[in-house]
Amino acid sequence: MPEFDLIDRIRARVLQRDDVVLGIGDDAALLQVPAGRQLVVAMDTLNVGVHFPHATAPADIGWKALAVNLSDLAAMAAEPAWCTLSLSLPGDDPAWVESFLDGFLALAAQHRVALVGGDTTRGPLSISVTVHGFVEPGRALRRATACVDDDIWVSGTLGDAAGALALMSDDAGSACRASPAGVVDASGSVAWTDSDPRDPAHSAYARLRLHLDRPTPRIGIGLALAGTANAAIDISDGLLADLGHVCAASGVGAQLQLDALPASSELRALFPDARRHALQASGGDDYELCFTAPATARHAIEQIAIATHVLCTRIGRIVTGSDVQVLAGDGTSWTPPRAGYVHFGSE
Amino acid sequence: MPEFDLIDRIRARVLQRDDVVLGIGDDAALLQVPAGRQLVVAMDTLNVGVHFPHATAPADIGWKALAVNLSDLAAMAAEPAWCTLSLSLPGDDPAWVESFLDGFLALAAQHRVALVGGDTTRGPLSISVTVHGFVEPGRALRRATACVDDDIWVSGTLGDAAGALALMSDDAGSACRASPAGVVDASGSVAWTDSDPRDPAHSAYARLRLHLDRPTPRIGIGLALAGTANAAIDISDGLLADLGHVCAASGVGAQLQLDALPASSELRALFPDARRHALQASGGDDYELCFTAPATARHAIEQIAIATHVLCTRIGRIVTGSDVQVLAGDGTSWTPPRAGYVHFGSE
Repeated sequence: MPEFDLIDRIRARVLQRDDVVLGIGDDAALLQVPAGRQLVVAMDTLNVGVHFPHATAPADIGWKALAVNLSDLAAMAAEPAWCTLSLSLPGDDPAWVESFLDGFLALAAQHRVALVGGDTTRGPLSISVTVHGFVEPGRALRRATACVDDDIWVSGTLGDAAGALALMSDDAGSACRASPAGVVDASGSVAWTDSDPRDPAHSAYARLRLHLDRPTPRIGIGLALAGTANAAIDISDGLLADLGHVCAASGVGAQLQLDALPASSELRALFPDARRHALQASGGDDYELCFTAPATARHAIEQIAIATHVLCTRIGRIVTGSDVQVLAGDGTSWTPPRAGYVHFGSE
Repeated sequence: MPEFDLIDRIRARVLQRDDVVLGIGDDAALLQVPAGRQLVVAMDTLNVGVHFPHATAPADIGWKALAVNLSDLAAMAAEPAWCTLSLSLPGDDPAWVESFLDGFLALAAQHRVALVGGDTTRGPLSISVTVHGFVEPGRALRRATACVDDDIWVSGTLGDAAGALALMSDDAGSACRASPAGVVDASGSVAWTDSDPRDPAHSAYARLRLHLDRPTPRIGIGLALAGTANAAIDISDGLLADLGHVCAASGVGAQLQLDALPASSELRALFPDARRHALQASGGDDYELCFTAPATARHAIEQIAIATHVLCTRIGRIVTGSDVQVLAGDGTSWTPPRAGYVHFGSE
């Protein structure tokens, strides 16, 4: 499959937008940013074996490659518009590419994102995406603008993606991949059963996998929070690590209530409390939003949560200082078993 | 070297621009496109062993990763403004990163390009860059607008980068890398000598390597050609392949004069005519511009060449049909020994 056949296949499937003056097929795309808007640009890369397991379905890889980028736009309260895609593939596999595009373009269509250009190269499987969105001047949510006494909130639930990864990399991981049905005993180890797919443990694992493989970029709530929240970040490296970036950029500290961290019923069912807490506090790949807002905004945020159908949970408070402190139910300080996921140095 | 240390190192070295509202360090960059301009976006990836030899110096990799992207802006007659960089590295090597940035940021400074964001990940060595530029509506040079009877022009000389690659991958390649001094006999094979570095053959090879490792994006002449040229493309995959894209997009054919293709004195010195012609017609990585313009524009183009200090050579004519035909000095049709470089399927 020569590169230009591949480009034609991609071009035939992309969404049209009026602000795309010239899309795929020339040396560069020509795009029209609406008058009075700022351009918002983010770029993220996924490498096989680092950012997704080797066994991940190509459609899930496609979805996730765009989702992690849209998540960055969500955290800025930006409206998505365009993307470019660079796809490095080890060989010719038209069926793989079509499946990849199924996932990538399904998410693009949900958010009316036009794929306007990029590159296809030979190399180890790697996907780089650059996303472009718009924001009105002064409306973008930043990391550096959290204020002391702000509430700290998160969207959705925490630790689901990390829970799926933990189950996949447990000793029983191979059984997990072959037949995703298992239960976790009190020690945290997994006992797998070749159970019926309707087994509750099976569907719980499947729902965790969905968080890992098909994260939901929080575009709607990100847009709704502009003007209400003071600061925001998306949680890619784990709550503590990412909230730490907000604190460092804002020159503040944070105090979290461990018991307030939202957990899915699946995570509760599959992991004992101690391991679950670690997954929620330090696990990566959730792509939820963590944001801060003054206490006066609580009612507004509850209304936004209802309107956007996204759970929003108040998990703590911005304080003076520079540390992110977590308080257990008994008021003592809680420390996670290990630091959050970091790309460099942690593999 | 954790990712965030690396990001701080990069941030400390980047150029500032007034139109960068928020650069490196948040979830996304905030950028201001000038009123009345269209945004021009291109994205290209370089993978080790595919787009540059394993032995390439990190500063050259940095330069080239930005150069191949700026070349796309040049071919659109766009003014460069911003870029994002995604860098996948197999391990922690601060010295490598600093050298890479030396090359990348030296070229960025030449063209006042601000690095505004991106990603650093663990993985096989791979560099993705997205570049952003501006163009006035209607002034961009496209592939699809070549007209029958247009002259066909190229900037610079052709085949130098491919010549360097050919020497590196000849049987004598290891000698070449160790001591780049050699001569090519009439059969096209290379006889290497452990000669003095001032040996003419040595400096000729070094100059070819410079074309391969440090290509010059033709930004200045690209901008100058807006309003004069009808169509343009940059030559990354080889003249015949890339001119073929212009012809396909414009619904025209092309007739080239083989003897008119510009060659450097180094290429003439190191390769016999037959092999040199093949390198000029089909070799990739030149990053020169190929453009078409009406015959009435000849004087204007000569003036642009003088003003921008870039050789411009008229090499043929756009004709009806769909083929790119090359005529040898005796008027017979010339066929290259093999098709131009194609990423997919040709490795």
